Amino acid sequence: MKIQLALDRLTISEAIRLTRLVESDIDWIEVGTSLIKEFGMESVREMKKAFPHKTILADTKTMDNAKYEAEISFTAGADIITVMGNAPKVTIETCIEMARTYQKRVMIDLLNTSSEQLKSLLTIEDAIFCLHISKDEQELSGKNEWKNSEIPAAYPTPSHTIAAAGGITIDSLSQLLAGGIDIAIIGSAITKAANPSEAARQFNQLAKGGVFINE
Amino acid sequence: MKIQLALDRLTISEAIRLTRLVESDIDWIEVGTSLIKEFGMESVREMKKAFPHKTILADTKTMDNAKYEAEISFTAGADIITVMGNAPKVTIETCIEMARTYQKRVMIDLLNTSSEQLKSLLTIEDAIFCLHISKDEQELSGKNEWKNSEIPAAYPTPSHTIAAAGGITIDSLSQLLAGGIDIAIIGSAITKAANPSEAARQFNQLAKGGVFINE
Repeated sequence: MKIQLALDRLTISEAIRLTRLVESDIDWIEVGTSLIKEFGMESVREMKKAFPHKTILADTKTMDNAKYEAEISFTAGADIITVMGNAPKVTIETCIEMARTYQKRVMIDLLNTSSEQLKSLLTIEDAIFCLHISKDEQELSGKNEWKNSEIPAAYPTPSHTIAAAGGITIDSLSQLLAGGIDIAIIGSAITKAANPSEAARQFNQLAKGGVFINE
Repeated sequence: MKIQLALDRLTISEAIRLTRLVESDIDWIEVGTSLIKEFGMESVREMKKAFPHKTILADTKTMDNAKYEAEISFTAGADIITVMGNAPKVTIETCIEMARTYQKRVMIDLLNTSSEQLKSLLTIEDAIFCLHISKDEQELSGKNEWKNSEIPAAYPTPSHTIAAAGGITIDSLSQLLAGGIDIAIIGSAITKAANPSEAARQFNQLAKGGVFINE
């Protein structure tokens, strides 16, 4: 299982500083939507420049204007962009086409995506599907538990690559691992930890098949 | 009827230059999603600085992290932000609360919003509801006609403020005007016109109740 570090509500220099602390224990770096909306593509460019050997995901949450958003993101250094699963189908398909052209990838964010919409997307074999409990659902609606029942509906075949995001802790990581999730997206459990590098080490140890013992 | 000028796929200085040409014939200025994702909140700040007396809409298309996105946008000078109608309900409600706190407004973008989702939103009397044919639907799926049948479903009571966006022309403006649309969002029909100020003048003349005669 890969660890994707989600960077949100930070300045670009804070994001770089934090990532340096945990670099060896994370696989992918997510330039969060908040960084993109606050600082634009400069945030993607700076993160790619600081971490050229890491996979950079730009959490664009594209809803429209897919060609343009894909172009500015891939050109800025993104290896993966995100598109909303509840965007018009043509927008999702265009992101996929653009990614194929640039030899990059797309993560489809399934936040508030109906099972009907999801069903029509599962033919896209090279996308990454992201199960997502949003920040607002966690922080404002109190939804923060990953239940086993939330996992299976999203991946009818093992050929899909599945990510999960939203309030993931060491405890829920074990469940997600058992559920076959390929990528765990971790934000504040690392970035707001008292000791981010130790937190990242614990997540990564568990993700890579080790057993984490809380000392 | 108000005219909202949508600025997309431009640099900030191009956006300022274009807006100066048409300033007297438009009511609201939309800092498009593409400007926000490319240049961040700098785009909102610069547009507000250049046009302090105009209403500035930041097309944030918020899907999550409502408090933060509202805060950075209103602080940068936005008078209105947008939230997706198909975002989690708590995200939409938080945008509305934030707007009330800042004495600003929210436009709910109804792109790919189900009638069930819309129904649950119509109790929010102070939001602006935006009927939206997306760029991708227009440019890639060939959907570009405003049909009368698309209008009524969205506003069961005349108390709601309704906007419409997506490929609006002088011809479709007449229909939208007859349908009771309060705000027409015009992008490329002005920004890509051979003569943007003349195009804006024509839209505005019709929007303000005059009759446009194509000479």
